[in-house]
Amino acid sequence: MSSSTGHSFRITTFGESHGKGLGVIIDGCLSRVPIDFAKIQHQLHRRRPGTSSITSQRQEKDEVICLSGIENGLTLGSPVALHILNTDAKPKDYSSTKHLYRPSHADYTWQQKFHILPASGGGRASARETVARVAGGAVAEQMLKHVLPAFEVVAYVTRVGKIAIKKAIIDGSLSRADVDQSLLRCPEPTTTESMLKHIKEIKNNGDSVGGEICCCIKGVPSGLGEPIFDKLEADLAKAIMSIPACRYFSIGDGIEASQRLGSENNDALMQTTQGTIERQSNHSGGIEGGISHGGIIYFYAGFKPPSTIFQPQTTLTHSLKPISYTPQAGRHDPCVLPRAVPIVEAMASLVMADHFLRHHTQHGPSHLSTTSEDV
Amino acid sequence: MSSSTGHSFRITTFGESHGKGLGVIIDGCLSRVPIDFAKIQHQLHRRRPGTSSITSQRQEKDEVICLSGIENGLTLGSPVALHILNTDAKPKDYSSTKHLYRPSHADYTWQQKFHILPASGGGRASARETVARVAGGAVAEQMLKHVLPAFEVVAYVTRVGKIAIKKAIIDGSLSRADVDQSLLRCPEPTTTESMLKHIKEIKNNGDSVGGEICCCIKGVPSGLGEPIFDKLEADLAKAIMSIPACRYFSIGDGIEASQRLGSENNDALMQTTQGTIERQSNHSGGIEGGISHGGIIYFYAGFKPPSTIFQPQTTLTHSLKPISYTPQAGRHDPCVLPRAVPIVEAMASLVMADHFLRHHTQHGPSHLSTTSEDV
Amino acid sequence: MSSSTGHSFRITTFGESHGKGLGVIIDGCLSRVPIDFAKIQHQLHRRRPGTSSITSQRQEKDEVICLSGIENGLTLGSPVALHILNTDAKPKDYSSTKHLYRPSHADYTWQQKFHILPASGGGRASARETVARVAGGAVAEQMLKHVLPAFEVVAYVTRVGKIAIKKAIIDGSLSRADVDQSLLRCPEPTTTESMLKHIKEIKNNGDSVGGEICCCIKGVPSGLGEPIFDKLEADLAKAIMSIPACRYFSIGDGIEASQRLGSENNDALMQTTQGTIERQSNHSGGIEGGISHGGIIYFYAGFKPPSTIFQPQTTLTHSLKPISYTPQAGRHDPCVLPRAVPIVEAMASLVMADHFLRHHTQHGPSHLSTTSEDV
Amino acid sequence: MSSSTGHSFRITTFGESHGKGLGVIIDGCLSRVPIDFAKIQHQLHRRRPGTSSITSQRQEKDEVICLSGIENGLTLGSPVALHILNTDAKPKDYSSTKHLYRPSHADYTWQQKFHILPASGGGRASARETVARVAGGAVAEQMLKHVLPAFEVVAYVTRVGKIAIKKAIIDGSLSRADVDQSLLRCPEPTTTESMLKHIKEIKNNGDSVGGEICCCIKGVPSGLGEPIFDKLEADLAKAIMSIPACRYFSIGDGIEASQRLGSENNDALMQTTQGTIERQSNHSGGIEGGISHGGIIYFYAGFKPPSTIFQPQTTLTHSLKPISYTPQAGRHDPCVLPRAVPIVEAMASLVMADHFLRHHTQHGPSHLSTTSEDV
Repeated sequence: MSSSTGHSFRITTFGESHGKGLGVIIDGCLSRVPIDFAKIQHQLHRRRPGTSSITSQRQEKDEVICLSGIENGLTLGSPVALHILNTDAKPKDYSSTKHLYRPSHADYTWQQKFHILPASGGGRASARETVARVAGGAVAEQMLKHVLPAFEVVAYVTRVGKIAIKKAIIDGSLSRADVDQSLLRCPEPTTTESMLKHIKEIKNNGDSVGGEICCCIKGVPSGLGEPIFDKLEADLAKAIMSIPACRYFSIGDGIEASQRLGSENNDALMQTTQGTIERQSNHSGGIEGGISHGGIIYFYAGFKPPSTIFQPQTTLTHSLKPISYTPQAGRHDPCVLPRAVPIVEAMASLVMADHFLRHHTQHGPSHLSTTSEDV
Repeated sequence: MSSSTGHSFRITTFGESHGKGLGVIIDGCLSRVPIDFAKIQHQLHRRRPGTSSITSQRQEKDEVICLSGIENGLTLGSPVALHILNTDAKPKDYSSTKHLYRPSHADYTWQQKFHILPASGGGRASARETVARVAGGAVAEQMLKHVLPAFEVVAYVTRVGKIAIKKAIIDGSLSRADVDQSLLRCPEPTTTESMLKHIKEIKNNGDSVGGEICCCIKGVPSGLGEPIFDKLEADLAKAIMSIPACRYFSIGDGIEASQRLGSENNDALMQTTQGTIERQSNHSGGIEGGISHGGIIYFYAGFKPPSTIFQPQTTLTHSLKPISYTPQAGRHDPCVLPRAVPIVEAMASLVMADHFLRHHTQHGPSHLSTTSEDV
Repeated sequence: MSSSTGHSFRITTFGESHGKGLGVIIDGCLSRVPIDFAKIQHQLHRRRPGTSSITSQRQEKDEVICLSGIENGLTLGSPVALHILNTDAKPKDYSSTKHLYRPSHADYTWQQKFHILPASGGGRASARETVARVAGGAVAEQMLKHVLPAFEVVAYVTRVGKIAIKKAIIDGSLSRADVDQSLLRCPEPTTTESMLKHIKEIKNNGDSVGGEICCCIKGVPSGLGEPIFDKLEADLAKAIMSIPACRYFSIGDGIEASQRLGSENNDALMQTTQGTIERQSNHSGGIEGGISHGGIIYFYAGFKPPSTIFQPQTTLTHSLKPISYTPQAGRHDPCVLPRAVPIVEAMASLVMADHFLRHHTQHGPSHLSTTSEDV
Repeated sequence: MSSSTGHSFRITTFGESHGKGLGVIIDGCLSRVPIDFAKIQHQLHRRRPGTSSITSQRQEKDEVICLSGIENGLTLGSPVALHILNTDAKPKDYSSTKHLYRPSHADYTWQQKFHILPASGGGRASARETVARVAGGAVAEQMLKHVLPAFEVVAYVTRVGKIAIKKAIIDGSLSRADVDQSLLRCPEPTTTESMLKHIKEIKNNGDSVGGEICCCIKGVPSGLGEPIFDKLEADLAKAIMSIPACRYFSIGDGIEASQRLGSENNDALMQTTQGTIERQSNHSGGIEGGISHGGIIYFYAGFKPPSTIFQPQTTLTHSLKPISYTPQAGRHDPCVLPRAVPIVEAMASLVMADHFLRHHTQHGPSHLSTTSEDV
């Protein structure tokens, strides 16, 4: 069960970093949903390495191949299978480290669990696995947009190391095109400059750095999520925390909210002149009691610095000898934040697609959408 | 599926805040595990309201009744059903608010989802639901201690509002008895004093306040957790974020780690003189690649201030009239942190019990424990 | 996971035959469904022992107590918990057999699995466990009738031992009231007479006998079921085969169909004068490719003779000594068929409720029902 | 969720009959299991069409391609992905029927569920989907044989239409090689002759015929299965009934047992001179109370005649016009029984693999196997 997630909209991923490729099976997608492969490809390209001086130089086109589930551009109701070949795998790059446990990688723990290690590059415990998530998430997103035209998920970088933006944008006004104007997917140009300078220095030192991402979800109707264990924020937390290197998840004004008084943090209800029910503030990030209230859902996710650094480190070999080593080769990111943006968007879309379908179970889509007669 | 959680060790809770009582069904518990009801009761008492001037004055004995699954003090392999009666429910206290949507409560969203509201007190969207989690978690804990004698989960308060402890204790040296020496379950006496003073002031103003809890898990063998979607930190995040009012989850040095360089954050492996493999530091909080490495697992969880405050607030009635109201009665906590400590411990125990059994699936308990021949 | 079943409409049962009682948690039931406890009680009474000379003399009123999930007669969307107390448990009746493995009971296999045996009466491996299924199934049925007014499930006895009815009624014309006119729930009066005579003889010899039940499900819209592993007939087979003593499951004309030619067995489509699409025959039992076609679903289920007989049998004691024994006491049925009728109806209702909600996931109820605006 | 099955050993299949190919993802397989692709291929060949005059003339090599999860012949613990290309798909063969609902096929019901039909050949509602099950089942079988060397699953044909074998062999003495000596996989040579003659006549008439298969599972330890809903026979029933055209499932002496007296049907326990505990008879088919007792598990499965016949039939077009049609082309089997044999074996292996791992959850493999230290 380690490679499946979701209840009604469910994906299963497969493939290793230096094997034939990575794939995803999407089970439960609504039928008759038009799928635009260019849009899947676009998100894959945003995640792709090799696109700038500050990302890994691994060259992968990440072209998605559809193995099943779509005919004449429409989903059939049967599982959608997508495959992305590995074309620039270099297992030899790992020959110098394959006899030792790389610190803060999954080498040691994978062996403790499975008593066998893939030949190179972390196998499945590699960030390359996320390419399958992005493909799956792009299908989830297209399904949601088909039934909820206003649905939109946009993530962006709020912090690199200790360099943070001045003010997070949580009103849903940012588009992905806006975000992509910055090489770092940070919406503040001057902050981007400082971050870039910082990352270049770090890279020159063979070091790496962490940071934070904010993600806004628009166009979500009220009523999605479950009140007890499968609260919307709980499932979002799980999905986001399952991204490699993710270290914290905070819903709404999470961290600040925990420092506030109730009188400062409550979101008063009001009716707009258009008759919709909204909140005067949105400290809760669009979710009350685990269920969406119809406003913008936003959250923050923090990432640790990548574990691969090009500085000497001590560790143990497989035969438990202490050793000092410095990686000779291998293509790694000094900072994963910009590439993590589409991964965060994908995981958020997957959770929303699942809870949209789960909510159908209780109420059907009639009060949620008017776009499609028989969806 | 909203009221079940876990895969191999699975609980289902039921009951409303002002109904007959709350219950939990525990399915998948190992057989022949000795269950000490006094230990379940102890954790329930730690969660219980009415025990000090700064908690809700609702008086509940929270005596646990066993309906099935245990005979002569041993689990039978069949589902363990535990029930806790509501003895001090006061639905009338809610008569003044039952026609309106209380701000930042689940009143509005529950109605959007289910199109019906329970008569009083939030029904199932009440913190009283957590009494069932604590009972279930206490069984999970006893099962784990039976097969892993060194297993221990201890949570404590690190912050109330903006008043934080000087240094978190993450080496596993704190016991629950230590923690309980503080009325606020904060291990620093002088910080406790400041926090208490702060809470009393807030309470006098009819206000409420949030805060943070740290939780340490000891005695966990390496190999628990799954490498992709069901990473140990992802399942912990989901479990903890499903606690009412929880707003963020951070594994290990999470928030700080995201501000560090890789050279500062990596945990080098070493072998101790006793031959065990450990980390020179534990920034990762005991988990690498989603799988436990054998060291202490620790995390932080942040809680928002309780939504019920005794100050005038504006909101909408069910017929969408704007209204200003101040709750007249009802028994609420100005700060949930001390009572949340055993809830956090329960959710953490449930996740660990589930992943312990899931790991059995792959490897059996032979290399994990020597305490029991046929477990 | 042994005590839960269903995906979107999910029940979990608990309790032992000679413990406090039996219970069921129903999670996923639609909200705002009116629940009539008299109807639940009616099905429980149909299953109840002690109602005639040919059933077990155990006297249980089987009064259902609602612990949660229903208020003012309506479901709240939260889990419905129902409890039925054991009032006539006689664990002492089992003292003479508790040191041995009763042949064809679960004594031996339960011990092999769980390494512990409940003190008496099979614990959870007792047909008494089915009382909880009947309660859960009665809620499923009421939910389905609320959204699909024509929905109806009626089972009846077609065979006792080798005495079979002349012709099965598979056109949905039988009601439960019709069925209950026979003490054996067999719709043919003269066949009932022969069966009764046969059972009385068998009972006098201390023996037991098996038989067969037919079940018809009416008012099911087309489109329910899944095309691959969760075919409607596959989920029905699992549910029915999980009833104690059930030995075979056959959908539609199953056994006969396997002896036919394709030209004899295909069901031609036609349009009725009312415009509905129907089949000219219904050999398939209402399901094609795992999905309901809108006609009557019917199946057969066969039951072995009860394992408890009052004749000398050889077996092994727990210390593996061969022994010949004859049960002294204990209250058992010489033939379970009439009491199995409501159990079969319950399991069928549970499967249909689950697949109804699962189908919602894909399409919503709008084209299925016009009874309720927001279901 | 329609395309996944299993709890701890879980497969997901994908692909359409006339698309790129069929695939299976196997999640949960033990790590370090040696996988012999020739053995997978052997089972695929046994299922393959085009091998004799009485099977479909579709020519598919069904060569299995491994996309992930296996390195150097050993499972890695990550999902095993297998793909089988369609090389002889002839969608044009279906052009004459694509505007109508073929009787007793899933055309009508699939459209009722998904409101879209794949261009040809039933899409996923085709028996070709089972090629993925056979591949998955072959991996399950190899995993089980690795940890339980005596494990073996052998199915064979007991009946074609009304021509049945004289005596079923349920003592586990048949091997697959024995079975394959008959073109029809029926162990009695003279019965095979009669069956063959019958099938040829039927084929000449453009008709089809049903039949029955028996399946024996050897080498299963006691203790597998769950006592309530996930009884071993219930999960076997579901798995087998999910095979296209399967119409009934009967465990042990199922149908006969339902006609017997308890005194005829009970299986007395005894101890062999070797000290093992066995039954004097095995009417129950190796399962008591849902849990394996250590003896041979056997069951029967009945299949209807294939729905495609080359005789005129009446049906409706998509625009609901009545029509008489005779299929012009398309390659179909007059009798699926011999090709269903490896499919039945695959589904049985999948269920046993899942319950083996589920039983691990409770007890670990230590008392089940001595072959591998860390499995």
